[in-house]
Amino acid sequence: MGCCHSCLHYVLDYETPKTLVIQSKAVGFVFRFTQLLVILYVVGYVCVVQKGYQETDSVISTVTTKVKGFAYSNTSDLEHRFWDVADYVIPPQGDHSFFVLTNIIVTPNQTQSRCPELPTPSSICTADCDCTEGHSDPRSNGIQTGLCVNYSDTQQTCEVLSWCPLEIDTNLPKHAMLAAAENFTVLIKNSVTYPKFKFHRRNIMPQINSSYLRRCEFNRITDPDCPIFRLKHIVSEAGEDFQSMAVKGGVLGILIDWSCDLDWWAGKCYPKYSFQRLDNKNPNNSVAPGYNFRFARYYKTPDGEETRTLIKGYGIRFDVIVFGTAGKFGIVPTIVNLGAALSFLSLVNRPVTVTILLHLILYFSRTI
Amino acid sequence: MGCCHSCLHYVLDYETPKTLVIQSKAVGFVFRFTQLLVILYVVGYVCVVQKGYQETDSVISTVTTKVKGFAYSNTSDLEHRFWDVADYVIPPQGDHSFFVLTNIIVTPNQTQSRCPELPTPSSICTADCDCTEGHSDPRSNGIQTGLCVNYSDTQQTCEVLSWCPLEIDTNLPKHAMLAAAENFTVLIKNSVTYPKFKFHRRNIMPQINSSYLRRCEFNRITDPDCPIFRLKHIVSEAGEDFQSMAVKGGVLGILIDWSCDLDWWAGKCYPKYSFQRLDNKNPNNSVAPGYNFRFARYYKTPDGEETRTLIKGYGIRFDVIVFGTAGKFGIVPTIVNLGAALSFLSLVNRPVTVTILLHLILYFSRTI
Amino acid sequence: MGCCHSCLHYVLDYETPKTLVIQSKAVGFVFRFTQLLVILYVVGYVCVVQKGYQETDSVISTVTTKVKGFAYSNTSDLEHRFWDVADYVIPPQGDHSFFVLTNIIVTPNQTQSRCPELPTPSSICTADCDCTEGHSDPRSNGIQTGLCVNYSDTQQTCEVLSWCPLEIDTNLPKHAMLAAAENFTVLIKNSVTYPKFKFHRRNIMPQINSSYLRRCEFNRITDPDCPIFRLKHIVSEAGEDFQSMAVKGGVLGILIDWSCDLDWWAGKCYPKYSFQRLDNKNPNNSVAPGYNFRFARYYKTPDGEETRTLIKGYGIRFDVIVFGTAGKFGIVPTIVNLGAALSFLSLVNRPVTVTILLHLILYFSRTI
Repeated sequence: MGCCHSCLHYVLDYETPKTLVIQSKAVGFVFRFTQLLVILYVVGYVCVVQKGYQETDSVISTVTTKVKGFAYSNTSDLEHRFWDVADYVIPPQGDHSFFVLTNIIVTPNQTQSRCPELPTPSSICTADCDCTEGHSDPRSNGIQTGLCVNYSDTQQTCEVLSWCPLEIDTNLPKHAMLAAAENFTVLIKNSVTYPKFKFHRRNIMPQINSSYLRRCEFNRITDPDCPIFRLKHIVSEAGEDFQSMAVKGGVLGILIDWSCDLDWWAGKCYPKYSFQRLDNKNPNNSVAPGYNFRFARYYKTPDGEETRTLIKGYGIRFDVIVFGTAGKFGIVPTIVNLGAALSFLSLVNRPVTVTILLHLILYFSRTI
Repeated sequence: MGCCHSCLHYVLDYETPKTLVIQSKAVGFVFRFTQLLVILYVVGYVCVVQKGYQETDSVISTVTTKVKGFAYSNTSDLEHRFWDVADYVIPPQGDHSFFVLTNIIVTPNQTQSRCPELPTPSSICTADCDCTEGHSDPRSNGIQTGLCVNYSDTQQTCEVLSWCPLEIDTNLPKHAMLAAAENFTVLIKNSVTYPKFKFHRRNIMPQINSSYLRRCEFNRITDPDCPIFRLKHIVSEAGEDFQSMAVKGGVLGILIDWSCDLDWWAGKCYPKYSFQRLDNKNPNNSVAPGYNFRFARYYKTPDGEETRTLIKGYGIRFDVIVFGTAGKFGIVPTIVNLGAALSFLSLVNRPVTVTILLHLILYFSRTI
Repeated sequence: MGCCHSCLHYVLDYETPKTLVIQSKAVGFVFRFTQLLVILYVVGYVCVVQKGYQETDSVISTVTTKVKGFAYSNTSDLEHRFWDVADYVIPPQGDHSFFVLTNIIVTPNQTQSRCPELPTPSSICTADCDCTEGHSDPRSNGIQTGLCVNYSDTQQTCEVLSWCPLEIDTNLPKHAMLAAAENFTVLIKNSVTYPKFKFHRRNIMPQINSSYLRRCEFNRITDPDCPIFRLKHIVSEAGEDFQSMAVKGGVLGILIDWSCDLDWWAGKCYPKYSFQRLDNKNPNNSVAPGYNFRFARYYKTPDGEETRTLIKGYGIRFDVIVFGTAGKFGIVPTIVNLGAALSFLSLVNRPVTVTILLHLILYFSRTI
């Protein structure tokens, strides 16, 4: 009974530190000034600048792209040829990553057969005994048949089993074949979602109407909200020259930053576009500089034999990269940041802190 | 020596605030009640609801999809035609994003040649002088040759160099050609990894056996774990009508939420599916509503001339979007959240806080 | 006036807790030791191990891949055939996800026509009345015409409208047709960006020169920085056997971890490669184990009829998955972690804590 009573006493007694009030204006001033600094820091930096009171969420995004434009190439080896979207956009789906063909090496009418290897130190031969049947060097173009045949009037090379005739990719056109690609335009449709905040938005703003969309073109100053980009404009904003990039190809990033502050009004949340070359343009530190890949179109001759046209396509791959973080007031980060700030405030209440500060001030005031 | 002694004294002296014990039940009650509130908040909200003691990691995911089904179209312009997966799924690989063709405009037997432009205000002409050789309007279909030729019995338009005959894409079928696509099914295989926690899981749960997988179909109530989805079901759960969406196409998100609490038992971590239309279906605020793209199939005639079949394909692109955050007990977030909470508790120990609270309580008790 | 004076007094008065200095070496030692522990924890664990003072950012990445190698298949059903990159890499673009064909089932010369269904319990028939015109079972291969025709000398099945002849995919070659694919190599070019820190880097390090790149091959011990990987090596590092995986296909993840500490010198930030099989190799819990998809090549016969070659391709999809978090000193996390730590330190100043600790120590020292 007495134990219970004392226990209740312990629970309901309020224990508080005895405090001492020092009525010195100097000490009081230093104290309040330091408090002010801490509070200013907390309110000004943690809250206003860094938004420490916010919960964050990462963006989920979907992108659809549609390229428009056509070109006419009149280089000799491809005859005169007209190119439209179905020809030069690979793959055609208009995903978040699309490739625009700008330069090609075409090897038509390849069939599965035998032909002399391209002349390299290891393929040049003088007699059949220089070639090994079944040998396949990864750097060569096919499997040796063991014969040494005439490559040209002056050279003999080992015969290989391959898609013949072999591709000769050393004569890449100096000027991009589809130089006109710089005037193609691309419409980028981008929808984003912040699932934690149930926030959904598109890069085509509500105030943009259909007739504006039909004629506009992105420009950072005059048309910052237009989602239609001229390829030349994208490349030049990334600090590159379209024509020189088009020769050997490259990868170009279209970065869409959806960093949003969802606390105030949703209107503050809009996409910020930037452009950046993503591959290395420095040629002395890379194998296969630029961007190219080989693909083939398969045909059947009337007698059922399979032939293909091999295309080594150079071009610019545009990667639409969407990133961003949305912040919104959340109780946990607020508590955590405020709690941390209070810890600092309580430091100021310690006599030792104020004493140190006072001594520092006195020292500096004397030296001045 | 004396200095060292006093220094040791300073180091080993324990300095603690003098405290005052107030044996007032009212004050004690207010004090303990406030403490209780703070503790309740910390335990209840920060720990239980927000799981502030957890470290988090973002998901890494791989998706494989496989569509099944076939359809028969009997619209007049494409003759009667049978469609299977290799025909209507583009690209065929079954990536995290797959496209099901539902409606098409076919322009067969195009060749590189000359033909009259489609009649528009700018292409209609009366004499050759209305057309400029080499002129190419981005909105037209080719490069003008400078001639004015008969488009029909009544109209003359400028001749262009292009893939001829030109595509006429104004007569889109009102009813989706592949209406039967609504009964296609898709199997989605999804593996996720949380690298920080070395956690690995698939959306095909261990308890699912092969025979169940062969016959099941996702249904939120009866079969919530089945990874096979009927396309019609996906579209209707997203609040759309398959047949009307199939006409002009669209983009549909299959969202898989892998938010997991890895603290308790791993069995709690399972995928939650949701479906959402990602493009804008509102037609008055968009160019090119829906989703379509052009692709071509290239052929060679027996005499070696290249022809192509141009296909403008409309359809639904399904984007499988995997997101989620896993949380697991971590020492740093626990310390940080607990530390912040202690700061608040120490506030309660201040006499000024309790005094304010007491006055508030007295004020309210008097007014009532 | 008097009010203002007292108000000023209140503002400038410095209120500090009265403290009591206890000159007991035992108490002082316990106090300082506990302080030391807390400080050690904060400095050692939160700062050094967990880097609690850092702000973090997620990686943005672009990947380009290029496969090299050729193979020769001599299985009977495909005749002798030479395969190069344009044949076996699908899609050809060299994206972050690429597929290498290793085994195929080819069904050439399919046309839109009628043929007997493959014999299954539901397709075997004895008379026309067993087949329903227009009936299409999702598990069958086409739409029934209502006729019962000879499938073989001994069996009759319902006739279907489909791409004929039908694919028979039960005779998958036991040994992967492109077994030589294990010696193909892939060059992975990966650029990463941490937008918050304006940090940009490639997986081809500055010290790597062009001649090294031409001959090197990734090896964890001898060439850890070489971005060229032999497919066999990738698969074996993931704990799988290439030849057995090649038969039915699979999905293999090439994980690149770009976790970086950007505080010290940027040289510490380099990619760490790891490999992991992502699909389920356990065959008793999955429909369609492995990885395959169907695609077709379309041809036109001289008389204009469309035929296709249907290919069911099995192979390994390589997904390059880039992840990572960069950390750099940030003022907000520093404040928050330090604040939390200070809260713990202030706990030690409480007499109740020290009393408890003293009692514990006394208790243990007596029992020993």
